[in-house]
Amino acid sequence: MRRSWADLMKVRVKGRSRHYRTVSFDARDNEVVLIEQRKLPHAFELTRTKNFKQTARAITNMTVRGAGAIGATAAYGLAQGVCAFSGKTLAAFERHVQRVYRILADARPTAIDLVNALNDVRSAMNAGESVVQKQRLALKAATKFADEDVAHCEAIGRHGAKLIKNGSSVLTHCNAGWLAFVDIGSATAPMYAAQAKGKKFHVYCDETRPRAQGAVLTAWELAQQGVSHEVIADNAAGHLMQRGEIDLVITGSDRTLGRTGEVANKIGTYTKAVLAARHKIPFYVAIPLSTIDWNLRRGMEIPIEERDESEVLGAWGVDDRGKFREVRVANPTSGARNPAFDVTPANLITGIITPKGIFKPRDLWANRKRLGAA
Amino acid sequence: MRRSWADLMKVRVKGRSRHYRTVSFDARDNEVVLIEQRKLPHAFELTRTKNFKQTARAITNMTVRGAGAIGATAAYGLAQGVCAFSGKTLAAFERHVQRVYRILADARPTAIDLVNALNDVRSAMNAGESVVQKQRLALKAATKFADEDVAHCEAIGRHGAKLIKNGSSVLTHCNAGWLAFVDIGSATAPMYAAQAKGKKFHVYCDETRPRAQGAVLTAWELAQQGVSHEVIADNAAGHLMQRGEIDLVITGSDRTLGRTGEVANKIGTYTKAVLAARHKIPFYVAIPLSTIDWNLRRGMEIPIEERDESEVLGAWGVDDRGKFREVRVANPTSGARNPAFDVTPANLITGIITPKGIFKPRDLWANRKRLGAA
Repeated sequence: MRRSWADLMKVRVKGRSRHYRTVSFDARDNEVVLIEQRKLPHAFELTRTKNFKQTARAITNMTVRGAGAIGATAAYGLAQGVCAFSGKTLAAFERHVQRVYRILADARPTAIDLVNALNDVRSAMNAGESVVQKQRLALKAATKFADEDVAHCEAIGRHGAKLIKNGSSVLTHCNAGWLAFVDIGSATAPMYAAQAKGKKFHVYCDETRPRAQGAVLTAWELAQQGVSHEVIADNAAGHLMQRGEIDLVITGSDRTLGRTGEVANKIGTYTKAVLAARHKIPFYVAIPLSTIDWNLRRGMEIPIEERDESEVLGAWGVDDRGKFREVRVANPTSGARNPAFDVTPANLITGIITPKGIFKPRDLWANRKRLGAA
Repeated sequence: MRRSWADLMKVRVKGRSRHYRTVSFDARDNEVVLIEQRKLPHAFELTRTKNFKQTARAITNMTVRGAGAIGATAAYGLAQGVCAFSGKTLAAFERHVQRVYRILADARPTAIDLVNALNDVRSAMNAGESVVQKQRLALKAATKFADEDVAHCEAIGRHGAKLIKNGSSVLTHCNAGWLAFVDIGSATAPMYAAQAKGKKFHVYCDETRPRAQGAVLTAWELAQQGVSHEVIADNAAGHLMQRGEIDLVITGSDRTLGRTGEVANKIGTYTKAVLAARHKIPFYVAIPLSTIDWNLRRGMEIPIEERDESEVLGAWGVDDRGKFREVRVANPTSGARNPAFDVTPANLITGIITPKGIFKPRDLWANRKRLGAA
């Protein structure tokens, strides 16, 4: 590819095309700068968090979401919290770091990028001796985490592009696009790379209820990049597979177990993997290395976030005057269950597209050195 | 059961409990009376169609929906059209009948009840010699179709109740409740019957995007009847099955092939059947006899309605002031595919609950006499 990825990922806002990172850091004001994802695609806004608690809240309330984007936000949030320390002693500093770490780590339970990012930043700080040195190292490590996220996604695109043939139909679930990372995206990277090579293909975006990240974010991204696509209800993928209208599935992952190859991702991913296996359609998961959990031994041990029932009972969008509104869809006297993630076993996954190449899920462990296991 | 079904199915409107049929006929004014299902559960309203074209439109625009309810509405619509004939000759009458038949038959393509109901009414008219006789016979046949629908659903409940054990969790998809029939419902009949026997169980209602009939109609019905239930996103059933939280699936059907046991039902049914088979969870389909198509030889021949993309791209409900609103959820520059039904092969179906007992899907044909094949 002659053009760089950064050139490709552009947002048209008020008639002007510009490149944005999903997450960045303003070191002068010690603020994390985020694309406000809850208003997309109806409004494109940047939001700034003034302290690490606001940053943690932006993760919890899904101002920012997606494995890599959460990781980078947490990394910057830790640096932000660390840089705001105004005490004197190293002991007080260490207690402060511990507190910032804990609050950010608890912001969301399922995505491992968040923990991996925090650990990266915290261990980088060990090389410093003074508070000031440690603060500088924290910021440097957070920046490195974000830059690596971009580099990983670019490499995923390089390796994954060959999976997309001319004329093929690709299904994706939720948003593992550039909005879910610092840039480029994981599941979308092969699509953007294939597009850069001039391939023609069609993408079906699962709506991805309850939060509709597929209809809202992935469809918006693909429209911005001019990739042919259509939204489908989550119920429709099985039918399209049955009729031979889907050739390939690529999703992201919020946590991939390095020991077993199991993948925790947005609720509904497991269902699509089961359907793909039945129809012998290749099912790929695209991940940067920060999404791998080298410790957990069983997928059933992955904590599955249960979010508020209101997400299932309602929906959000704009009315005919363009005003953003929330509506209650379901019967008002009924409640809901809202598990936000599910776990897909390794035997349903054709391959895992990593920055280091495509691996069978069960081969991750044997390649752990290459894949950056500590 | 000591209490009759009609006693059980009650709607609380403005503090008063009353029994309503989903579809009925006002012979004096020659009007079909329908529960306006597009406003449920936020408003309970009856609507009247003044002529057969309005009746056909009520089917197309889903004022009334669901296999049996569509059938009864079409039957009454044909009687309504026939009774409105004011010409003189039998030849003109026959042309009129043919036109009414065609317009009603074309109102929706997938559900076979509609065609079966129209054929019932039309052939009953053959016994009459004069226009007046034929008109009377049409009305009588339509009433018989509607009453049989109720009797069939009651019998389905009797046969299906034994499948629901005390303490079990049942998944259902879309609405195959009393709103989808003249009364009682097909998939819900075993639930209501089990409840009448004093069994305790829990129902998960698939939201059933894009039109959310599960969240809107089934949840409302179950809440009215005091059945323990929760709404889930269509994406969540696989996860719940994986965790052992679903013991049984019961859905309805819009067309069941008597020759093969294949079932066309609301989009997403096939996906649930695939998941249930993987988890060895019994998957039942409940149908009145009018839902059986004895002619078609292959499920792939069933016409699958593709509805307007706006259903997938938007959502409907009430805002915080209780005002009914439609919102655009998806990216405004994206389109959608919207297949409304899918086909589930016989080998994924544990049994078909009919008014005549529970059959293996492939045994329908051998029992066709008992099951009312012409």
